Amino acid sequence: MSSTTVRHLVALRYRDGALLALDQTALPWEKRELRLEDAEHVAAAIARLSIRGAPLIGVAAGYGVALELSRDSAALEQACQILVAARPTAVNLAYAVERVRAAALAVAEPQRAAAALEAARALHAEEEAASDAMAAHGADLLAGARRLLTHCNTGALAAPGRGTALAVVAELYERGGLEHVLCTESRPLLQGARLTAFELRELGIPHTLLVDSAAAGLLAAGAADAVIVGCDRVAANGDVANKVGTYSLALAARAAGLPFVVAGPTSTIDRDCPSGAEIAIEERSGEEVRTIGGRSVTSEHTAVRNPAFDVTPAALVSALVTERGVASPVDAQSVADLLGAPQPAYRSSPR
Amino acid sequence: MSSTTVRHLVALRYRDGALLALDQTALPWEKRELRLEDAEHVAAAIARLSIRGAPLIGVAAGYGVALELSRDSAALEQACQILVAARPTAVNLAYAVERVRAAALAVAEPQRAAAALEAARALHAEEEAASDAMAAHGADLLAGARRLLTHCNTGALAAPGRGTALAVVAELYERGGLEHVLCTESRPLLQGARLTAFELRELGIPHTLLVDSAAAGLLAAGAADAVIVGCDRVAANGDVANKVGTYSLALAARAAGLPFVVAGPTSTIDRDCPSGAEIAIEERSGEEVRTIGGRSVTSEHTAVRNPAFDVTPAALVSALVTERGVASPVDAQSVADLLGAPQPAYRSSPR
Repeated sequence: MSSTTVRHLVALRYRDGALLALDQTALPWEKRELRLEDAEHVAAAIARLSIRGAPLIGVAAGYGVALELSRDSAALEQACQILVAARPTAVNLAYAVERVRAAALAVAEPQRAAAALEAARALHAEEEAASDAMAAHGADLLAGARRLLTHCNTGALAAPGRGTALAVVAELYERGGLEHVLCTESRPLLQGARLTAFELRELGIPHTLLVDSAAAGLLAAGAADAVIVGCDRVAANGDVANKVGTYSLALAARAAGLPFVVAGPTSTIDRDCPSGAEIAIEERSGEEVRTIGGRSVTSEHTAVRNPAFDVTPAALVSALVTERGVASPVDAQSVADLLGAPQPAYRSSPR
Repeated sequence: MSSTTVRHLVALRYRDGALLALDQTALPWEKRELRLEDAEHVAAAIARLSIRGAPLIGVAAGYGVALELSRDSAALEQACQILVAARPTAVNLAYAVERVRAAALAVAEPQRAAAALEAARALHAEEEAASDAMAAHGADLLAGARRLLTHCNTGALAAPGRGTALAVVAELYERGGLEHVLCTESRPLLQGARLTAFELRELGIPHTLLVDSAAAGLLAAGAADAVIVGCDRVAANGDVANKVGTYSLALAARAAGLPFVVAGPTSTIDRDCPSGAEIAIEERSGEEVRTIGGRSVTSEHTAVRNPAFDVTPAALVSALVTERGVASPVDAQSVADLLGAPQPAYRSSPR
């Protein structure tokens, strides 16, 4: 793995036998592109959040399988294991790895690396198209909203294309009518302060940053018309695992009588997971909480719990926006209906 | 104003014609004591949160009036104005200033400075005794709780004596049975990470630090038996203004079916304020959010809203613990009953 400084922003691209990934831990201070050449590189970049956002880590992992196969045709199974283990919560990761693995195994040895790369590229193209479809469905749903609140980062840095929830925000702004976005800083790793504020500025959308815990009081005071967030895994019953703090926002939106909208591609839905109770919640290192920007904010001896996600019950989710349409209310039936719906036509035209 | 490094921790003490205050912005990295010699020094220390916590800023402001009078007998009214304007939300500030001012004006000129100092000391002693009384009432109320979650800092650094909510925690631990405390970091100024974790460590109470937005998910998962917080102002109807994030915790406690307990001296109750809607919420500088420990976490151009407090409706508060007893349920009648209750005997024995 090596890195170079870049001037433009593309979260992820495949080029010349390597995956080039913007190092999101360095943003907004530095625009650095990592060159990842095998599955281990990709898994490490996912684990330390250089690549993050459920759809984006899925696509990256897909390329990771293909990269490894192009180097060592015997390494397929081990590469898949390393990649799936990089982060436990997002189901896109396992979905993408299995899909690319299956594509490779479906052909004879000399073609496997090429088949894997083709499958990874197809997934990438699908997720890009899914972003546009979600943006359109979400903007239809939220037509008339002038002020939105969002959490963590769900834009072009989190998912191929324009992202998930932030793609809806961008589409609403382009259509006219959206005036302002409140974004939470999203401790501990500050994806809101570092990445979402940065993306909203690039998009030219007026925005204001808050500490996470300020959102509830501002929603109660009428500062937004709706809340929109992304998702890391959606259970079959519609329960949503997403960035820690999402559940608090859902409670606050409900108390304020505001729509609470979740956006994500159907690759985020885990039909094998019956409910949120079965979703493994990743607990990350206490150092992410004890230090900020390299500076300690508490004793090095302070014990920390650092869950990266929480679960929002389906009953608190007003609508689930996917590339195939919108589930509302969100429950086992509406989620099953979404998964049973025909895939948009772009599924047949991989990039 | 000057400062010296100290080895022991007393948040506030009057000595040799000055108020000595631990600089809470420097904790836990540095134990520095500020020497404050007039009202302007005291007001500035309150405004920048070197002195913080509603009961503590009340006592400090009381001494500020006395200090000013001892230097310039004509400066009374101006000193009172400067002190009351230092922070808008805590009612203790206005209460203390008015009480010390009235004590000064009740006597003839040569005795005014002495009368003011006596009144400030009496208030200090009362708040210390109130801390012990709150601790006892709160520990009676929460008897049997093994794991508590608390927010911001409400210990010896926030209020004379052992504090408010953290005094209850300490008392429960001393009585035996309390096993563990979850404390939120309390962005933006990290009073939980810097001060509460520090105080709990000094008290020997096992504790774990969380980012603020992790609390709701952990409460839903059964990680605590109750939530206890302090308060900056309680309206006549029982609505509670407290550190930003308190309202989120109250919603999360309610959703999890857990008691949500507020502790504060009756000096925090504003009988002239009918409800939370009338409480002025201080909005502080965006720099507190844009930078952490001197390092930027977003663009310097990012707009910020930084409310220091939020309002929790009385209906979400299971109990209000004061030095005069406990109101539960919390409503206009139970709050009025508390204020009408006889003051504990220690009120007549000022320090």
